[in-house]
Amino acid sequence: MGNILVWNEFRHEKKDPSVADLYPNGMHQVIAGFLKEKGWDVETATLDEPEHGLTDDVLDNTDVLLWWGHVAHDEVSDEAVKKVQQRVLDGMGLIVLHSGHFSKIFKVLMGTSCDLKWREAGDKERLWVVDPSHPIVEGIGEYFELEQEEMYGEHFDIPAPDEVVLVSWFTGGEVFRSGVTYKRGNGKIFYFRPGHETHPTYHDESVQKVIQNAVNWAAPVKRDRPVYGNAQPLEQVLEGK
Amino acid sequence: MGNILVWNEFRHEKKDPSVADLYPNGMHQVIAGFLKEKGWDVETATLDEPEHGLTDDVLDNTDVLLWWGHVAHDEVSDEAVKKVQQRVLDGMGLIVLHSGHFSKIFKVLMGTSCDLKWREAGDKERLWVVDPSHPIVEGIGEYFELEQEEMYGEHFDIPAPDEVVLVSWFTGGEVFRSGVTYKRGNGKIFYFRPGHETHPTYHDESVQKVIQNAVNWAAPVKRDRPVYGNAQPLEQVLEGK
Amino acid sequence: MGNILVWNEFRHEKKDPSVADLYPNGMHQVIAGFLKEKGWDVETATLDEPEHGLTDDVLDNTDVLLWWGHVAHDEVSDEAVKKVQQRVLDGMGLIVLHSGHFSKIFKVLMGTSCDLKWREAGDKERLWVVDPSHPIVEGIGEYFELEQEEMYGEHFDIPAPDEVVLVSWFTGGEVFRSGVTYKRGNGKIFYFRPGHETHPTYHDESVQKVIQNAVNWAAPVKRDRPVYGNAQPLEQVLEGK
Amino acid sequence: MGNILVWNEFRHEKKDPSVADLYPNGMHQVIAGFLKEKGWDVETATLDEPEHGLTDDVLDNTDVLLWWGHVAHDEVSDEAVKKVQQRVLDGMGLIVLHSGHFSKIFKVLMGTSCDLKWREAGDKERLWVVDPSHPIVEGIGEYFELEQEEMYGEHFDIPAPDEVVLVSWFTGGEVFRSGVTYKRGNGKIFYFRPGHETHPTYHDESVQKVIQNAVNWAAPVKRDRPVYGNAQPLEQVLEGK
Repeated sequence: MGNILVWNEFRHEKKDPSVADLYPNGMHQVIAGFLKEKGWDVETATLDEPEHGLTDDVLDNTDVLLWWGHVAHDEVSDEAVKKVQQRVLDGMGLIVLHSGHFSKIFKVLMGTSCDLKWREAGDKERLWVVDPSHPIVEGIGEYFELEQEEMYGEHFDIPAPDEVVLVSWFTGGEVFRSGVTYKRGNGKIFYFRPGHETHPTYHDESVQKVIQNAVNWAAPVKRDRPVYGNAQPLEQVLEGK
Repeated sequence: MGNILVWNEFRHEKKDPSVADLYPNGMHQVIAGFLKEKGWDVETATLDEPEHGLTDDVLDNTDVLLWWGHVAHDEVSDEAVKKVQQRVLDGMGLIVLHSGHFSKIFKVLMGTSCDLKWREAGDKERLWVVDPSHPIVEGIGEYFELEQEEMYGEHFDIPAPDEVVLVSWFTGGEVFRSGVTYKRGNGKIFYFRPGHETHPTYHDESVQKVIQNAVNWAAPVKRDRPVYGNAQPLEQVLEGK
Repeated sequence: MGNILVWNEFRHEKKDPSVADLYPNGMHQVIAGFLKEKGWDVETATLDEPEHGLTDDVLDNTDVLLWWGHVAHDEVSDEAVKKVQQRVLDGMGLIVLHSGHFSKIFKVLMGTSCDLKWREAGDKERLWVVDPSHPIVEGIGEYFELEQEEMYGEHFDIPAPDEVVLVSWFTGGEVFRSGVTYKRGNGKIFYFRPGHETHPTYHDESVQKVIQNAVNWAAPVKRDRPVYGNAQPLEQVLEGK
Repeated sequence: MGNILVWNEFRHEKKDPSVADLYPNGMHQVIAGFLKEKGWDVETATLDEPEHGLTDDVLDNTDVLLWWGHVAHDEVSDEAVKKVQQRVLDGMGLIVLHSGHFSKIFKVLMGTSCDLKWREAGDKERLWVVDPSHPIVEGIGEYFELEQEEMYGEHFDIPAPDEVVLVSWFTGGEVFRSGVTYKRGNGKIFYFRPGHETHPTYHDESVQKVIQNAVNWAAPVKRDRPVYGNAQPLEQVLEGK
């Protein structure tokens, strides 16, 4: 099935009682929980562990990495970011959640500011499926709703996605490309918008379903990285023909 | 500059006084008007003219065709549709407006049902720019609004667009990919959502600006259609090297 | 696992001894054979069967359809084409092989001429993987070669693919987008270039692997077609909020 | 028309007589020359100038930047790279030439390794147009040839391009996506493969035509960067409706 690593900044849960109420052991534990149900081998890692829990041993054993961060993006070491970027290019799947849009790893992989509009005001969010054949929305209706979420609005400063799977509507008049895919090297990336720490979003069944599907989709394809660099001399090539 | 042809079904304006109030000479005349301001040579054609006004002579002289249709898609002859399709493949630009999503020519070029959700209830529409570098939104702010429009909602059954330029928000909770581009053969296609006959949409400055930009963008590139079919014998090819 | 239907025109094999030597029971049997090895339930159908073997019963039971045709595209009934198109929009996967680029069903789904350059001269073909993270090339090296194939060359008059997975090099100086994907409605489409009837292409291990992977990739996602048409009245929508 | 800046590393020309023979005043001068013919205001800048010639004043006045680098990518300061990246996001066009695929600025904007296969053996290169409607290939035939060029081969480790315009064929059996476009923020990027310093590539008429077209295409769209960050309070939004 594959090995999944759920990475969480894990700061809000320790400082903000309202967040701790929703996620007493951290968001990563809730996310790990509903992924384990699907039969994957799931580990977790958090910012304040040594090497942020992203040791070579751990990454060697990771097929898909999920990433939630918000207030401490800058505390993630550049070394860790480079390592994770290389793993993605080598084939590891990466699922970036909510405020992870501003994580170093997402910005480095996108090459843009990844900036957006936001508002913490309990807008209703309705996520519409615009790519109905995509495996990430298997089992999802034509839309699903979250009664209250932080608003993220366009323009979202990302490269044109390979696929736009979900587009959100918000009460206050904004839209957002909420579920988008990219490939980088041998690896696949899914950005999924919902998941503000003060709302019970990761307890929502549709959100869980999308993340489960995304893990499945992002699992590495079994093949070597292509060979780069100096190719054999032309004479040799032509003789072989 | 190029020659533009604005094609209109021109039925609503003759039958419905409220539409005639907004567009006394037909929507095509209003559209032709704001395109002429930009210096193009603009002609119009309507369904009830001989050959729907789409004679070979007219099409030979057309760089970009705009298309508005609604209640009489079926009355457009298959022959005309085939002819227009071929012209697009040969390089003519095509801009499909509003209910033209269900025109024969758009469905033939897309290969899908082009179906969608709709509601005539005067929703407010807010069109967000999601591709800020696109020439079609030059001079457009981060969004523009239409106080009242027919709602079109996802899922919009079109192929994944080459580019999604605009995404609409509607009062009632829907979103829609409202400005999308495609290339087919040597030709370029822009679908632009707004333009319900009972609203003064084509009098709106932002709508006019988008359509003007789109005409510019869709103008044919000067080059021959590629050569297809049987290529020269391999020996001849290899000897020539 | 799903039910696969291999459709073959099945004319060359009956008329041309050199083709019959390679595929005594038809190409469809060879293709069905290597798909069955993977555990799928595989049926076949051919042009000269009643309804071309594409009855409602058969299609109701088909998750992925493979299509090979060449000299008799015109003999496929328009009714069958419409039915297959609808099935694709409803979620059935479609894999179009080689000269199937000119089949009615592919042209209808693409909206373009699907024309190309060709040469029957035994060029060597080398197929390069340009999308290494794609499940369709799992287990495939950075390229694979076919010692002799019919050449297909650019320009290939198709819409910009959603994904370009393989690009071919030919001895005579041509290139070709040889493995390309599309989504249409709820369905997925893969076009795969190789497979000329006078070469043993479908006996090639890499070709078989790509087709097996493609069937897996094209399998339908379990979800209903979106709901289209008139949405509930706005008042009702707003009251519900 | 706009202001163009041609940036060149300008090292090969000073050290290698065979390169100096082809480009006595540097490649940037030849490129600037054929751009000036089109009526643009063209400046040049080179690595060894103060701030690499990329001062704020110069960049403030630049609509499209062309970039050629090879042996000294590491000598470009990170500060200059950040500045150029921001300018691209703000709308400046960027055209990356040949070995510029490994420049810091291209890698930062792509988020991938940008690695590839290469061979300096005088392969013939044939560049096929695969997107015939693209303005970058206006006036270009279905392909053009360079008698001798360095080979670059797939896999090219770049994100899936927004558009693949040209695909190269090489004598030795390789293919390459040779003309590809991206948008990042408000800016447009074109990567164009040919241009090895030991071949007279920038004296080739088709190469010049493509670069002229690309400058035209990459010119900034006149509009402000979108507004990011905290949106107005929801109450205020709702009251305004």
